[in-house]
Formats: sequence, C-alpha cells, structure tokens
Amino acid sequence: MQLETATPQAPVPPPRIGRAHVADIVEFLNAKTPADAADFVAHLPHEWAVEVLDQPTFEWASEVLESLAVEKAVAVLEGMSTDRAADVLRWVEDDVRDRLQALLSPEAKAAIAHLLTYPEDTAGALMTTEFVTVPASWTVQQTLDHIRAVERTRETIYAIYVLDPTSRKLLHIVTLRRLISGEPDAPIASVAQPYAPITTTPFASREDVARLIAKYDLLAIPVIDSTSHLIGICTFDDVIDAMIEEQTEDVQRMGGMEAIDEPYMQISFSEMIKKRAGWLCVLFLSEMLTASAMQVYADELEKAIVLALFVPLVMSSGGNSGSQATSLIIRALALRQVRLRDWYRVAFRELPTGMLLGTILGVIGMIRITVWQELGFFDYGPHWQLLAVTIAASLVGIVTFGSLAGSMLPFILKRLGFDPASSSAPFVATLVDVTGLMIYFSVAYIFLKGTIL
Amino acid sequence: MQLETATPQAPVPPPRIGRAHVADIVEFLNAKTPADAADFVAHLPHEWAVEVLDQPTFEWASEVLESLAVEKAVAVLEGMSTDRAADVLRWVEDDVRDRLQALLSPEAKAAIAHLLTYPEDTAGALMTTEFVTVPASWTVQQTLDHIRAVERTRETIYAIYVLDPTSRKLLHIVTLRRLISGEPDAPIASVAQPYAPITTTPFASREDVARLIAKYDLLAIPVIDSTSHLIGICTFDDVIDAMIEEQTEDVQRMGGMEAIDEPYMQISFSEMIKKRAGWLCVLFLSEMLTASAMQVYADELEKAIVLALFVPLVMSSGGNSGSQATSLIIRALALRQVRLRDWYRVAFRELPTGMLLGTILGVIGMIRITVWQELGFFDYGPHWQLLAVTIAASLVGIVTFGSLAGSMLPFILKRLGFDPASSSAPFVATLVDVTGLMIYFSVAYIFLKGTIL
Repeated sequence: MQLETATPQAPVPPPRIGRAHVADIVEFLNAKTPADAADFVAHLPHEWAVEVLDQPTFEWASEVLESLAVEKAVAVLEGMSTDRAADVLRWVEDDVRDRLQALLSPEAKAAIAHLLTYPEDTAGALMTTEFVTVPASWTVQQTLDHIRAVERTRETIYAIYVLDPTSRKLLHIVTLRRLISGEPDAPIASVAQPYAPITTTPFASREDVARLIAKYDLLAIPVIDSTSHLIGICTFDDVIDAMIEEQTEDVQRMGGMEAIDEPYMQISFSEMIKKRAGWLCVLFLSEMLTASAMQVYADELEKAIVLALFVPLVMSSGGNSGSQATSLIIRALALRQVRLRDWYRVAFRELPTGMLLGTILGVIGMIRITVWQELGFFDYGPHWQLLAVTIAASLVGIVTFGSLAGSMLPFILKRLGFDPASSSAPFVATLVDVTGLMIYFSVAYIFLKGTIL
Repeated sequence: MQLETATPQAPVPPPRIGRAHVADIVEFLNAKTPADAADFVAHLPHEWAVEVLDQPTFEWASEVLESLAVEKAVAVLEGMSTDRAADVLRWVEDDVRDRLQALLSPEAKAAIAHLLTYPEDTAGALMTTEFVTVPASWTVQQTLDHIRAVERTRETIYAIYVLDPTSRKLLHIVTLRRLISGEPDAPIASVAQPYAPITTTPFASREDVARLIAKYDLLAIPVIDSTSHLIGICTFDDVIDAMIEEQTEDVQRMGGMEAIDEPYMQISFSEMIKKRAGWLCVLFLSEMLTASAMQVYADELEKAIVLALFVPLVMSSGGNSGSQATSLIIRALALRQVRLRDWYRVAFRELPTGMLLGTILGVIGMIRITVWQELGFFDYGPHWQLLAVTIAASLVGIVTFGSLAGSMLPFILKRLGFDPASSSAPFVATLVDVTGLMIYFSVAYIFLKGTIL
C-alpha cells in the first residue's frame, strides 16, 4: 500500500547551481529590475529556473512567471514545490494566472487550487504537500527503504508521518534521527515520539505556527483538517521567512505606515507615497483635535502665555509613556504572556507605574522651572511656584493616563479583531496628545484660577 | 580515528516527561514564582530536571540552579548541553557560579569556561559543541554506524561535518537525508554538498547568524575559529528563540524603553520602573529643549496667540513622518537591503518623498483653517489666509526635515557602532519636535512679519 500524498512530481533539482548557492543567485537577481531578472531566468536551464523560482526569498517570482513563455512558465510551475507555486501564483495578474492554471497537469492544478483557497498568512497557505507518510503496519526497514526511494521528491524527510492504514488519520510522528537508530525489524511505532503529535489547523495564523515550532523545537508541524487527516506540513524554514516578514511589518506599522513587502530601494516612488501618505493623513486629521482643544483654551492662553511654553513638553511626555506601555503590551500579547482576560491585571500594574513615572518627571520639571527662574534664565512671572506645581501635577496626570491608555489600546484592538501591532503606537500618540492637552489646561485652571488665569 | 569534539557526555535524556511535552512543563513552571519552580525541579528525577533546565525558554533556570543543593546543581549542569549550561551560568550569582564551576568535571569545566568567554548574543555564546564530525577518509556506511552510536549525545545529527583527517579543518557538510540515500561503500565526500560550506565566526552577532540560516535554509551553521577549525554549530531552533527575543527587544526599544527579558506579569515593580524611568527621563530632559525653543519665541506668541494653537499639530506631523522614515530604514538596514554607504541614495529618496508628503498635509491644513474660518467655528483674525499659508509652508518644511532626519539617524547610529533599532525612534521624535518648532516659528516670522507679528 502506497500512502503518498497527492501529486507525483518531477525529481527536485539539485539545490544549488554549479558551485554557487542558489540563495546567492537569488540575492543577485533581487538587486536587478524585474525585467532583467526575467530575462536572466528565461535563459537558465529548466532545472535551475525551477530552483530559483522555488526560493521564497526571490522577490520577482511573480513578475518572472508573467513574462516567461506560457509553456515554459507551466513547466517551471510543475517543477516547483506546490506550496511555493501557489504562493507565487497569488501575486500573478488574474488573466495570466487563469491561463497558466488551465495548462497545469490535473494533479498539480488540483493541489495548487486547493492551497489557493487558504487565506494568505495562514498555515494552509504556508504548508507544503510534499512530505513522507507511511502506514503504521510498516517496519523501520520498510520505512527507511521508502524514504531512500522518495527522498528527492520531498521537501523534508526529517519527520515521517505514520498514518492509520485504514482511516489514514495521523497516529504518530517519527524523526529521521530516531528512525536510523531503530531496529530494522521493529514496527515503525516503536521509534515514534511517545506523546500525541503536536499539530495545527490550516486556518491557524502564521504567528501561531511560528510559536508552536519555536515552543516545541520542531523541524515541521503537521497541518490537520477537521476530519483529522494530514493535509500538509509547515517547515521551520518557511516559518523563519514568515517571522522575518512579520517583524518587518510590525516595525513599519509601529512607525505609523502601511507595511511594504518590497526592499526599500526597489519600491516605486508612487507606491512609497501611497503607503505613507494614508496613515500620515489619518494621524494628521486626528491630531487636528489638538488644535480644537487649544482653541477651547485660547482665552486662558491669552491671559497666561507662559502656559503655552510647556505644551510641547507635557504633550510629548504623555506620548512617550504611552508608547512604552503599548510596545510592552503588544509583545506580551504576541508571546501569549498576557491574554485578553488579563486586561484588568495589566491596568492595576500600569496605574501605579504611571503615577510613579509621572511623579519622577514632575519633580524634574519643577526643578527645571525653579533653576531657570532663580538663575534668571527666564522670568515665569510672580506666580512661578504655582506654575511649577501646575506642570508637575499635569505630568502625573498625563503620564498616568498615557500608561493606562497605551496599555489598554492593544487589548481593545485585539478584542475588536485587529492585530494589536498594526496601529496601536500611532493611535496611542494621538489619543494621549489630545487628552494630555485637556488634562494640562484643566490642572492649570484648578491651580492658577485667581492668580494668572 | 575518533574525531569527536570535546566532552564525553551522559546520554541525553528523553525529550519529554511521561506523555507531557517538556515544553508544556516549562510553560507551567514559567507561570510560577522562581521559588516554587525551584522546589518543583528539586523534586524531579535527575533526567527530568536536566531536561527542564535544558530548555532555552525556561525563565527560572538560573534561580533554580542557585537554590538547588550544590551536588545536585553540578550533576544537572553536567547533564545539560554545554551551550545551554554556559547560558544559564551567565545569569547565576558570581559566588555560586564560581563554586559550581569548580566542582564540574575537567572536560565540562573547560568547555563551559570557553563558551563563557564569548559575549552574549554572539554566535559563540549561541553555539553548541555537541555535533557530529567524521574524517574525510570514512565511507557512507562507517558514518551511518557512527551516527547510530552517538545519536543520543548530540544536539543534532541532521548535519554531519567532514574534517580533514590530519589538519582537522572543515572540508564538507553532509546532510543526513543525502547520507541515507548514499551508496554504503562510497566515500563520505560523494554525498557532500557540492559548494563550499557556509560558515560563521564565533563573534558574529546572532542577527547575522539568523540571517545566514534564513537565507540558506540551514538546519545548523558551523562556527569556525580563525584557524579554520570547527568549534561549534548554531542550530535553527536556537536561532528561532533568539529571533523572538530580538523582536521583543526591538519593539520595546522602538517604544522608548530598555528591553526587558522577563514576561510582563513576572517583572517586579521596581524593575519595571527602572527599565522605563531611565529612558523617559532622558527623553523628558531633551524635550525640555522645546520649552527653551518656545521661550525664544515668547514675544511672537504674545503678539499672535493664534500661533500657539497649531504648535501640537505641526510638531506631531514632524514626529510622525520621522518615525515612518526611521522604521523603514531600521528594517532595511537589518535585512541588508541598504548598507551604510547607501545613505546618500536614501537621502535622495526621502527628500522628494518628504516634500510631497508635507505638501499633502499642508493642503489639508489650509483647507481646515479655511473651513473653520468661513463657517465661523473659530476666528483666526483678519490675516487668517496668511496664517493658513504659514501652517502649510511649515508643514512642508517640517515633514521634509522629519523624513530626512528619521532616515539618516539609523545610519548615524550604526556608523557610531550602536544598534540602529535600539534608540532611533524616540531620538528622532525629540530631534524633530525641537527642530520642528524652530522651523514653524521661522516660517511664521517670514510670512507674518508686519501683519500680526
């Protein structure tokens, strides 16, 4: 009984070209224009073209596929691993994709169409269907012989999946290292891992897949459908690539822009403006609320212009404390150190933290005003002591609010189904800026009413 | 000839306890206090204690080691992989570490002392010394037999390192998958990878190691000293753990705080304040320059209080455009998409980008003032059109400056030998805030001199 999954495949070509590593060739091509890269690939021998296109780090794969002759493109697709082929096809123009898919062999067509049904960034889209399965009735030696026969057509053979001979459900996982030290005549189950297989579902996010692979130090994690059948595996190298991409997106989104997936030097000017202008305008429009808030207090400002001098200082302190809290909670949520239901425990930590941090800054602020006044650097008027107290009290309020708002926003975004990393940082800054102004002027009103206000 | 590296070791214990996966036990213990975790580990059978301590994700390893009885602690250290043992010892109190190291077997003592000489976060500190080497004179079958014999004492056997029989320098790398499909009597070199081994040095940063492993899809990368001798290997799972830690540090540093390496809920209150207050005070002290800048323009503010209303808006726009540029360049540098020498090419991209983005915001700002004035929401005075032009022109200047400064600062930090991720974002905000104010008031002076100023 042959328990192979899907698609009979052409043998995988050697993973390097001549004595150059394919990864170096990919790096060389990534630095070219898409047209030049396509021209280069079009002149490569078939096996080499397949190998280059098969690298997830190759930036121009979709563009190259679009510009290859149709028969050549189809042949390359057939040679590629199905998961990568599906991935590349995702980004090909609709009409070209339809034309290419129609010409694929029935097996490849079905496998790729199946993978394309999973949303990007899920285990289903990340997984490969080229793995090794054996029935539980086999021995160690039978399994070894089988692996030697199919080695070149599988993405990994370091994990072997043992299926129930009748139901074909996943029973055990055997690692190659245990397999080669097993007794040849022993049943395959004798070298299996002694615990239940760690698996994931096709709709798990790639972050969840990365977390499982990291937690259990896996070479690959099996993907199981709702009927407990093995439909694919996600390998550690795909996960490392996904993590690097994820990290880039997180940093860019924390910087307040849409994530870009092309290298900085290659993205077009118009694309760059598009990715940055949208968020910048949203933030600008919400920061307009600061102008509205200032207008409300225009009379107070008129009377005590000295208040305006400290607006940037108190505002930025709120923003800084807010972004500290946000970045802490974004990571704690991503690493599952805190869960949604822990929000109130986090609030109870951030409240005293924010108050103490605000007090520290408040004291520094008071010292600053006192020193400047006493040494004659600037004259804050006869009520400068009251002004110093006002600044200090506002800082306590604003930093406390910043820490609380900054720590709670990621929870709210996650609760609403958004990625907390995607927009917390810039939103917190805006929210804290506007609220900070209101706290500042309210505190000033309380302390300075009757003197300078 | 036996080409084993270093330390004869006790067999590695089974990688799970009963039917629970050790990773789950570690997760359970991480949620306890260090004292409770130590108590639990002290009552585990020896092999299980070793296995738990051996997990890089176990948070309390150093605390547990400190509170175990000395003989037990030494036995556990001997059982652990040397790289992890060295890692854990790094964080143990100095006097305890000295006492434990003195009691280790000579081989383990030498191996651990050697690893401890490498700075944290380098390949040398990350590497394991438990790998498989064979002389180039061996056959496929001899190598397979050898692997079967040593399998349990090696961290990975998926890559086999072939050394020159006399000089012991690294000649080839053989993957286990190619080895098992090789002809038994063929020389080991016949199944070696056809290109020169991809290696790293002990002082390479863990980011560089991660980049190589990701680029070449390696299971492990050999670490070579200055005499071309193999001194260790870094495996993909250590690299994944290092990447996750790195990502957390990056996010936290971008949020303007010192990186913390304990889970959010476990860090003590005083530790939390220490990690956050330092940076917050530095930023507060530099933001004080905004108060100084405002003081310079106090007379202008007195005459035209309307100028104060837009200070938060123009200031935040500069900060937002700066953090976009910074986050883009931090990642582009980390992924080697741009190099130090590309700084002027980046500047030439950011200059027009910043000008166009500033113009977009400027137009929105003018519309805002016009609408508020014409609809009677607020009266900006008889010269409101001039004010609108002032705001727009300042935004062009400030956003352009923000984009330029934000993109150049990571280059400067990297040139000075700092990690660009570590402090670019908060520094850019402060720099752009202060400069933004000066641009704003200078533009106002040019446009409004003789009317409202």
